[in-house]
Amino acid sequence: RINPDRLWDSLMEMARIGPGVAGGNNRQTLTDEDGEGRHLFQRWCEAAGMNMGVDQIGNMFATRAGTDPDAAPVYMGSHLDTQPTGGKYDGVLGVLGALEAVRTMNDLGIKTKHPIVVVNWTNEEGTRFAPAMLASGVFAGRHSLDWALDRVDAKGKRFGDELERIGWKGSEEVGARKIHALFELHIEQGPILEAEGKDIGVVTHGQGLRWIECTVTGKDSHTGSTPMPMRKNAGRGLALLTELVHEIAMKHQPGAVGAIGHIDVYPNSRNVIPGKVVFTVDFRSHLPEVLHGMVDEFNARAPGICEGIGVGFESQIVGQFEPPAFDVDCVGRVRAAAERLGYSHMDIISGAGHDACWINDLAPTAMIMCPCVDGLSHNEAEEISKDWAAAGTDVLLHAVLETAEV
Amino acid sequence: RINPDRLWDSLMEMARIGPGVAGGNNRQTLTDEDGEGRHLFQRWCEAAGMNMGVDQIGNMFATRAGTDPDAAPVYMGSHLDTQPTGGKYDGVLGVLGALEAVRTMNDLGIKTKHPIVVVNWTNEEGTRFAPAMLASGVFAGRHSLDWALDRVDAKGKRFGDELERIGWKGSEEVGARKIHALFELHIEQGPILEAEGKDIGVVTHGQGLRWIECTVTGKDSHTGSTPMPMRKNAGRGLALLTELVHEIAMKHQPGAVGAIGHIDVYPNSRNVIPGKVVFTVDFRSHLPEVLHGMVDEFNARAPGICEGIGVGFESQIVGQFEPPAFDVDCVGRVRAAAERLGYSHMDIISGAGHDACWINDLAPTAMIMCPCVDGLSHNEAEEISKDWAAAGTDVLLHAVLETAEV
Ligand SMILES: NC(=O)NCCC(=O)O
Ligand SMILES: NC(=O)NCCC(=O)O
Repeated sequence: RINPDRLWDSLMEMARIGPGVAGGNNRQTLTDEDGEGRHLFQRWCEAAGMNMGVDQIGNMFATRAGTDPDAAPVYMGSHLDTQPTGGKYDGVLGVLGALEAVRTMNDLGIKTKHPIVVVNWTNEEGTRFAPAMLASGVFAGRHSLDWALDRVDAKGKRFGDELERIGWKGSEEVGARKIHALFELHIEQGPILEAEGKDIGVVTHGQGLRWIECTVTGKDSHTGSTPMPMRKNAGRGLALLTELVHEIAMKHQPGAVGAIGHIDVYPNSRNVIPGKVVFTVDFRSHLPEVLHGMVDEFNARAPGICEGIGVGFESQIVGQFEPPAFDVDCVGRVRAAAERLGYSHMDIISGAGHDACWINDLAPTAMIMCPCVDGLSHNEAEEISKDWAAAGTDVLLHAVLETAEV
Repeated sequence: RINPDRLWDSLMEMARIGPGVAGGNNRQTLTDEDGEGRHLFQRWCEAAGMNMGVDQIGNMFATRAGTDPDAAPVYMGSHLDTQPTGGKYDGVLGVLGALEAVRTMNDLGIKTKHPIVVVNWTNEEGTRFAPAMLASGVFAGRHSLDWALDRVDAKGKRFGDELERIGWKGSEEVGARKIHALFELHIEQGPILEAEGKDIGVVTHGQGLRWIECTVTGKDSHTGSTPMPMRKNAGRGLALLTELVHEIAMKHQPGAVGAIGHIDVYPNSRNVIPGKVVFTVDFRSHLPEVLHGMVDEFNARAPGICEGIGVGFESQIVGQFEPPAFDVDCVGRVRAAAERLGYSHMDIISGAGHDACWINDLAPTAMIMCPCVDGLSHNEAEEISKDWAAAGTDVLLHAVLETAEV
């Protein structure tokens, strides 16, 4: 079993970097704080006897040697970047839990046939630079490296430039590594495990996702002196499409979600009718036909709704993946480990996207979830208990040792 | 008659300071660009033989002496600050038209009994610091100086600090000046004069206004893994209230307007359900009972609509004034001047708020409007013709001379 106090201390030390305003974290990708968090992680990995490799998109791979020089490594990890008002555990638990698993192997003098790699994927959150899981997506061949480096944030800064600025552009070719298997520990970010009183979620599937970036175009003009019949109010387009997204998602309950989280209004002045609103719809379902149906219905109805109030509508997909099904053997090892260790568990579908969803294309992959209080995540108040963190990390350790062959 | 080319050249020269992105201007109040525009205006006033006074809120008063040392001055002017994506004429025409009127008096060697003051009011637009017409409001005793200096912009910068930073905090007590009468020339910012084919709008009344800043509070949580029934989506509150504002304003056609122009979404991330949305409703009517009725209906219905979707609602008034009625004598002088000069004219209600609406509390006041293309304002594409500018400025000159007693 892992050392719960050492794990918790590391989580708390990482959380000191990029503190939020309400007890959580703002350590967005490729900020100075992200750079600082990476340095701390590197120091810890080196202290645990691992060698750090960094690829051209900033993914960090800390290797613990195996006994068979020809065996492909078993990977475990997640991401250290956070939402702008994120919690201390989303992603971080998966990286520092993996580090704790290696520290425990060191304590117990465990050797494995396959090398073990602890990984920190760059820009999982996708807030600053869409889409989410960008760097694991390049690793898995979903996006080209150049396309990823050319992403820009809301201030017009380029991903590639920011990566170089913080000093974490490595030399390793992205995606060149062999992977024997990958395990990702993550908080559930939803309410099910806590409600069911389970320590461990054995993740069998994920949800598919579509991010549809919409631009509604009206005419910015004076709120006081433009008569009502002459207006082209892009804000009303946002309003009607917000309700459309909600209505469409509600038709497919349970088993689908949808909302608009990102909204930029132009020129955003109290006495100017919005001339343009840019916003992103997030639709998800673990059922491909439901996901496609929601997107089709939105695309079919949104332009007409906007036309009806005299505003223009354009959209583009800025993030997408189909619902992943994880590797049956890896998933089985997670379930067996939870069973063996005496942790209560249940099979679960991941509501969120994760780096593991991409790597699942390349190699046998599975995920382990632990509960979080009130299912709250992407919120500074995100909370987990030390026991939950320890249980998830114990299961991670056992599933990985089983796969890496002691 | 004034010199149309000289007026136009000055308008174009001012427009070079704080250029926008689409041919208009971004010279928001208390920015470096605002400071630069003020310096240019001061140089022009001094070259025209006027003395500049600046009060503690940055209002600029350029005085042309009268023949009677005891007579209170006649004021004319408007504002040099712009919207973030504003035009070249909104406010600027009123200040530089007044300057042109003085230059014409100088050319013709005209002396007046009452001194003439050309005024540039600070922060008319109210975009960066709410409310609009802030400094003329302090001058008229609607707000205290300390309250105004404590206004903060979206980045947390204090009005008073920014005023000192750009070097335009004067020593003169705000509102201490005597005013015999005030005339403000302004573009209509609406479509009526152009549609009716009139050169001059004789402004008899203004619209009253309420700016209601609303905060809708939900719970920011993960868009993918928060089940639909557990969500508290503040974005839906915005959507439903956007439509409520529209519905309420439409009930009172013609004679009322309403929209939401300012919207800030928190944390504004693609995969986070909005936990908080802050936005400002702008309701206006020239009929007090309509204005009050709209505000009452909004206040009565908004909390229940939010409660119905599980989000909180709070609001506060951040800008307000009752519909002003301008001075019958001053208005008569504007009408007579247009008539005498042979310009087509009509009585009109101002859709926008103006500094003159505040000064109307203190002294006899009137406004002159000239058409603008397609009624477009608060938009970089705002446009007027040189003839329209000249006609308005001719009428301004004549109405002021009549009042200042040649
Ligand atoms: N786990 C997580 O929050 N990932 C970000 C991508 C997503 O929105 O699902
Ligand atoms: N004229 C003008 O645009 N004033 C700003 C205040 C308002 O919104 O009416």
